[in-house]
Amino acid sequence: MKYEAVTWRRDKVVMLDQRRLPTEEIYVKCDGPGEVAEAIRNMTIRGAPAIGVAAAMGIALGAMKLRVKSVGRFKEEFEGICRMMMETRPTAANLSWAVQRMETVVRGHEGEGLDELRRFLKSEAMAIREMDIEVNRRIGHNGKRYIRNGSAILTHCNAGALATAGYGTALGVIRAAHEEGKDLEVYACETRPRFQGARLTAWELDKEGIPVTLITDGMSGYLMSKGVIHMVIVGADRISANGDVANKIGTYSLAILAKAHGIPFYVAAPLSTFDLSLGTGDEIPIEERDSREVTHPFGTQIAPEGVRVWNPAFDVTPQQYVTAIITERGVAQEPFEASLRDLFS
Amino acid sequence: MKYEAVTWRRDKVVMLDQRRLPTEEIYVKCDGPGEVAEAIRNMTIRGAPAIGVAAAMGIALGAMKLRVKSVGRFKEEFEGICRMMMETRPTAANLSWAVQRMETVVRGHEGEGLDELRRFLKSEAMAIREMDIEVNRRIGHNGKRYIRNGSAILTHCNAGALATAGYGTALGVIRAAHEEGKDLEVYACETRPRFQGARLTAWELDKEGIPVTLITDGMSGYLMSKGVIHMVIVGADRISANGDVANKIGTYSLAILAKAHGIPFYVAAPLSTFDLSLGTGDEIPIEERDSREVTHPFGTQIAPEGVRVWNPAFDVTPQQYVTAIITERGVAQEPFEASLRDLFS
Repeated sequence: MKYEAVTWRRDKVVMLDQRRLPTEEIYVKCDGPGEVAEAIRNMTIRGAPAIGVAAAMGIALGAMKLRVKSVGRFKEEFEGICRMMMETRPTAANLSWAVQRMETVVRGHEGEGLDELRRFLKSEAMAIREMDIEVNRRIGHNGKRYIRNGSAILTHCNAGALATAGYGTALGVIRAAHEEGKDLEVYACETRPRFQGARLTAWELDKEGIPVTLITDGMSGYLMSKGVIHMVIVGADRISANGDVANKIGTYSLAILAKAHGIPFYVAAPLSTFDLSLGTGDEIPIEERDSREVTHPFGTQIAPEGVRVWNPAFDVTPQQYVTAIITERGVAQEPFEASLRDLFS
Repeated sequence: MKYEAVTWRRDKVVMLDQRRLPTEEIYVKCDGPGEVAEAIRNMTIRGAPAIGVAAAMGIALGAMKLRVKSVGRFKEEFEGICRMMMETRPTAANLSWAVQRMETVVRGHEGEGLDELRRFLKSEAMAIREMDIEVNRRIGHNGKRYIRNGSAILTHCNAGALATAGYGTALGVIRAAHEEGKDLEVYACETRPRFQGARLTAWELDKEGIPVTLITDGMSGYLMSKGVIHMVIVGADRISANGDVANKIGTYSLAILAKAHGIPFYVAAPLSTFDLSLGTGDEIPIEERDSREVTHPFGTQIAPEGVRVWNPAFDVTPQQYVTAIITERGVAQEPFEASLRDLFS
């Protein structure tokens, strides 16, 4: 791979600007935590695991740049930075998971000086990044057995190297099967309103020589009815304790359609995507984004001035539509409550 | 209504250029049948009933402009014009229906001179247009009882005044209920790849003061799961003898999703949309259009150069997902074969 969604270089957080793909590969350098937070908000970087990594790096960067003399003052400012990161986007569980890990570093090193705290925080951010790549490889390893030779796989949005520190969750499973020499092809839903399937997934798979065919979101049911699709696999932004899955808007429709056609529906996600404090998906906060994402794709007005718009960025797929959830520690299946309890114990 | 999808003015066929809506209301004037055929192909005008009317007018215009001296020569050239119209788009049944009506005029007037044939053809095209509006009003009348006061209705693509000579099929039913004073709101799927829901349906309803909310196609399932939607109503491009419905791509997914949520799924279409020569929807030819509709919305490249694309313009919804088909002559329901036979007898 010749690209990285997010990395640390010379005390800057460097991100591939995903809003410009696939026509331009431009890296943006963030000098401080405010810029990182803004990059998460405006979706320069997106994908639950990737924004977790970016937030951790943004917090480490913030800790480095704080002009304070006392540890007490440092902790106050540090909490402010963590809060800012937490508030960038509401749905992804990985974001709060990463922020909590950074907070734990400070809490776990009472009595240390400023330099040490800064060093520990930077190390933790680096570790979160490295771990994410390793976790994705394990998800790929655990999931590749579900992809049979000659499979056609439908995916939604981008749950790939671009959505993580590298390798990907859903696309990581596909990658692992491909690396093993399996013959497969991918159908990518374009994923309105922001076209992550067209712009990112098609780009990522194309770069790797994995055959990909692009469809619009409305074509998925008809494609399934043709008997072309063997499985659906998607990533996740937050998963509740019972296995309900919040993921990019459109995922729920795909799950219903897959069930109606007898097609297995897999979710690939790291444990950091789970929020066991929530009993069901009903409790997952769903971000609503600006109506202009719908009415003005790439700045072109496609709807009457002032038309009312509903623009939830995610939806929730109840566990009964999920065949299995593939994690780095193993695969959870019906009954999900027990299965997930086992994975986490 | 202050606009007309297609009309005849001073020996020209005049169309509202639907590719420019909603930001520009521009009328194009077609001087000859070749221009009308091209306008149908490039979707200046679209919607099965509207292209039937446009084709009839294009044929009448062609008949007027033919520089021939003998009726024999006239008939040869006339058949060529009819064939050209027939080949503009493959799926809409109304197109062949309208062309056949024009051919019947010539065949039914053996022995008439050139001037008479031309006059009869122009009258027939005008009659087809007038009849379409009347038929739509009757569809509206027959369908409005299914819309209860306070309903929220999901629709797809544009089956409105813009898709017909006026009033609309699916939107005609909504219009009729609105005119009756019923309180209702419409959710319009944007309908990728060509955004007819965003550009045309939202525009048309907005102009009339009917409350409309725009969603992307992938949001429909999640919206249904919220319990917000009381019914789905769509138009049709061709319906086979058993009640299978070809309509804009994405319709099939909506039908499956509606069934999964216990929401009734209605189709509104004139009898001219039926093709009783086809036993089932499997026999309906489905047009595939240029991949650039998917990869370059409004000229902006949203996918990697040369990516493979599947772009069927329509899909087929099997009759078992259709609650009822509302026509000008009455409403067809399960068992559809018998019910449709009755309507047509």
